[in-house]
Amino acid sequence: MIVLGIDPGTASTGYGVVKGDGLGLVSLVECGVIRTRAREPLASRLLEIYDGVKELIERHQPDALSVEDVFYAKNVRTTVVLGHARGVVLLAGQQAHVDIVELPPAEIKKAVVGTGAATKEQVQFMLTRLLRLKSVPQPSDAADGVAAALAHLMSSRLPTLAQAQARTRTRV
Amino acid sequence: MIVLGIDPGTASTGYGVVKGDGLGLVSLVECGVIRTRAREPLASRLLEIYDGVKELIERHQPDALSVEDVFYAKNVRTTVVLGHARGVVLLAGQQAHVDIVELPPAEIKKAVVGTGAATKEQVQFMLTRLLRLKSVPQPSDAADGVAAALAHLMSSRLPTLAQAQARTRTRV
Repeated sequence: MIVLGIDPGTASTGYGVVKGDGLGLVSLVECGVIRTRAREPLASRLLEIYDGVKELIERHQPDALSVEDVFYAKNVRTTVVLGHARGVVLLAGQQAHVDIVELPPAEIKKAVVGTGAATKEQVQFMLTRLLRLKSVPQPSDAADGVAAALAHLMSSRLPTLAQAQARTRTRV
Repeated sequence: MIVLGIDPGTASTGYGVVKGDGLGLVSLVECGVIRTRAREPLASRLLEIYDGVKELIERHQPDALSVEDVFYAKNVRTTVVLGHARGVVLLAGQQAHVDIVELPPAEIKKAVVGTGAATKEQVQFMLTRLLRLKSVPQPSDAADGVAAALAHLMSSRLPTLAQAQARTRTRV
């Protein structure tokens, strides 16, 4: 199962492509950021984000698109502009008929670290460990994209674990 | 000059196509709403809005796309979701290389009625009068789309009026 994780942003949209073998082994395929120029009008920045995500979907043919939910910043303007970026990311996924999963930041943290109150450093530590990387993915937006992908892979494993436990119980 | 005006919304996106002869005469070509089903996931509703706007652009080949700016509602969630809808509208315009104008509600009112503090009824009254319509466009979202288009046509006429006055002054 291949998951494309996205952390949307108008200046920098982080992404991570993570592969799971279905047995708990996960590996990083690619990660990075789609950067847009601050001087460009919003509409042309949205087109760059859309084209970038579309290209990633075409190249990796992910089974799911895991998009970090909007963080409600105190600055409403920032949050609303972020909504624009998220809109074109969801559109690219919908057009490609990819399963779309929207995860709030706390759920991503919970799936990766085990607690929704985990710090950014704890998420990066677990992510590096689970994917057996030598260092934390850089820049941090890319790491956030990887975390979104990983979180979906980790939470889709849960039913399998539950089934395994059910089987164990049946045997007992 | 043909202007496509859009009032974005996730449930109902209003639109109006208005034609100007460059001499102050404006006429309504078409107006209506793109409705989406509340039960559908956000991503598929965004696709419906995007496809609808794309189809309108292809059919009318507007010179400009005038999009109402986000109204900062007290409900942040509503405003953010509206940002998603606006994002895919701007994307459709950018992909078609149409000039994009973003107008805050107060500027639309000012261009159509003469004051940014105008009521919805005043805007609808002036819009019906300027376009020589028998009744107010229905539903009100469609009228808002028409107002956005009309506002851009009215404000792009201003430089011409200024030039005319400059000519008059020169003669004196």
